Amino acid sequence: MAFVVGIDIGGTTVKMGIFEPEGKNLQKWEIPTDTADEGIRILPDIAASIDEKLKEMDLVKSDCLGVGVGVPAPVTKEGIVNGTANLGWKYKEVKKELEALCGLSAVIGNDANVAALGEMWQGGGKGKQDMVMITLGTGVGSGFIVGGKLIVGAHGAGGEGGHIRVNYQEEDICGCGNKGCLEQYASATGIVRLAKKKMAGETRETLLAKEEITAKSVFDAVKEGDQVAREVAEEFGEYLARGLSAMAAMSDPSIFVIGGGVSKAGEILLSYVEKYYKELAFFANRDVEFALASLGNDAGIIGAARLALDAVQ
Amino acid sequence: MAFVVGIDIGGTTVKMGIFEPEGKNLQKWEIPTDTADEGIRILPDIAASIDEKLKEMDLVKSDCLGVGVGVPAPVTKEGIVNGTANLGWKYKEVKKELEALCGLSAVIGNDANVAALGEMWQGGGKGKQDMVMITLGTGVGSGFIVGGKLIVGAHGAGGEGGHIRVNYQEEDICGCGNKGCLEQYASATGIVRLAKKKMAGETRETLLAKEEITAKSVFDAVKEGDQVAREVAEEFGEYLARGLSAMAAMSDPSIFVIGGGVSKAGEILLSYVEKYYKELAFFANRDVEFALASLGNDAGIIGAARLALDAVQ
Repeated sequence: MAFVVGIDIGGTTVKMGIFEPEGKNLQKWEIPTDTADEGIRILPDIAASIDEKLKEMDLVKSDCLGVGVGVPAPVTKEGIVNGTANLGWKYKEVKKELEALCGLSAVIGNDANVAALGEMWQGGGKGKQDMVMITLGTGVGSGFIVGGKLIVGAHGAGGEGGHIRVNYQEEDICGCGNKGCLEQYASATGIVRLAKKKMAGETRETLLAKEEITAKSVFDAVKEGDQVAREVAEEFGEYLARGLSAMAAMSDPSIFVIGGGVSKAGEILLSYVEKYYKELAFFANRDVEFALASLGNDAGIIGAARLALDAVQ
Repeated sequence: MAFVVGIDIGGTTVKMGIFEPEGKNLQKWEIPTDTADEGIRILPDIAASIDEKLKEMDLVKSDCLGVGVGVPAPVTKEGIVNGTANLGWKYKEVKKELEALCGLSAVIGNDANVAALGEMWQGGGKGKQDMVMITLGTGVGSGFIVGGKLIVGAHGAGGEGGHIRVNYQEEDICGCGNKGCLEQYASATGIVRLAKKKMAGETRETLLAKEEITAKSVFDAVKEGDQVAREVAEEFGEYLARGLSAMAAMSDPSIFVIGGGVSKAGEILLSYVEKYYKELAFFANRDVEFALASLGNDAGIIGAARLALDAVQ
């Protein structure tokens, strides 16, 4: 029985799954990520875990169509990583090493891009071929799919939509060193920053004054009808729409899929973005759906499985 | 002998060429574009002209691998146009009609995108797989090539980089109805606008006061060392770099190819853009070459030939 393996390497755990080529998940499990010694044991641990799981499931390697892997770093088309923030890896030929370790062909991609592929295959963007996925977490990640294929880029740094400038007047510095990046307004930390700036000069009564401000507390207050929180959400919506308009001018998607922790606020979040998007986007790009990501933490392994399948199909 | 046909439909002439699959041009010619009666005769004229030329060259249709066509409008993946500014066409199934008329398989693309493909194949971006081409003419067009393939988009409106916002403080309105689009600063008319604004409050002596201001006169004055013109070029360079930085955050090119009438200013133009790009781009996207387009008016037919080849290879 033909199958593929999808792997999502994170800073604390490696998620893995066995999938049928049609997409059905047969098994999923995880192992800890051993980041000690520059992460030297991560790939051997993965190879050993695959072997064990296949044995347990009575599957043979010759039926495996391939292994797909998502990594939290830019990855070149040759499957090479030039340093990671969370795994300890410096220059690493991930594809080559993993193939040698497990005797299976492997395809490596950036984790945000791979998650986008997962959402296109089985999640919020199901059935679409031209999609932009935005992940609003601690930072802002993105993945661009055009004609069903991921944009990887010349340096493996395609799809860095979080670092598009949406404010040329900003004076605070983004984590990347620039000023005015989308990430400074639409990430969880960005929303907190907007809310704190608003609170600084605020005299009106607001729920935001009652507890520590988080992205969740802002959107909870929005749902309670809090006017100050709503004004923060308007700012968030306008900045995110500025970023999405720039992304659409290039890639012309039929759908935006919004995921990450911040997206747990739900449909109300989409309403704040969509309103500004329709106003700001280039006219030929306005006819776009907005959807929430639906696969949660499984997007990575599902997208990685799809990455492996795309390489053989 | 196998061959392909490349066609570039413009508002006044249709340029056509016969190419070997390896890229050598065997013949090129042009016919007038008959835009009367909603452009109803444009495609029949093209089909008749192909027939005539093949006869003259002793080529047989069964050796033709296909026809590629560039059209000055967004084109869907199905080869459908929904209105054009310069050809008179409203909704038109260009691929279907042309295939029926000439009995050859046809691929239709947007002219700016097709020209980008030409520059990648034989021009300023030769040998590159990840390229952004910017055409600075009356407006600002662009074409994105990722992994050797054009970004078309869900509505055939991918690659509209000229309508990325680069100034959220702008009060003048762009041709598209928005405010602050790259086109308002980096097109020939945009450069004139910047120069006129600067001249309004200018007391210094400057060559720009001596004749009617055009994009050419601005860059001619820059070359003469004119300080006022140089300040206009700095503004142009910064705005264009803002746009290119946003484009790179998404598509991560290895080269920017700059073409169109404004690019005739030459290498000096690149220097004004490159300086700001290195400062404004996301760090992972900074290692990019800048080159001038080199195919001139032939980029369209060469790219169209390549479009036809890509469809069969």
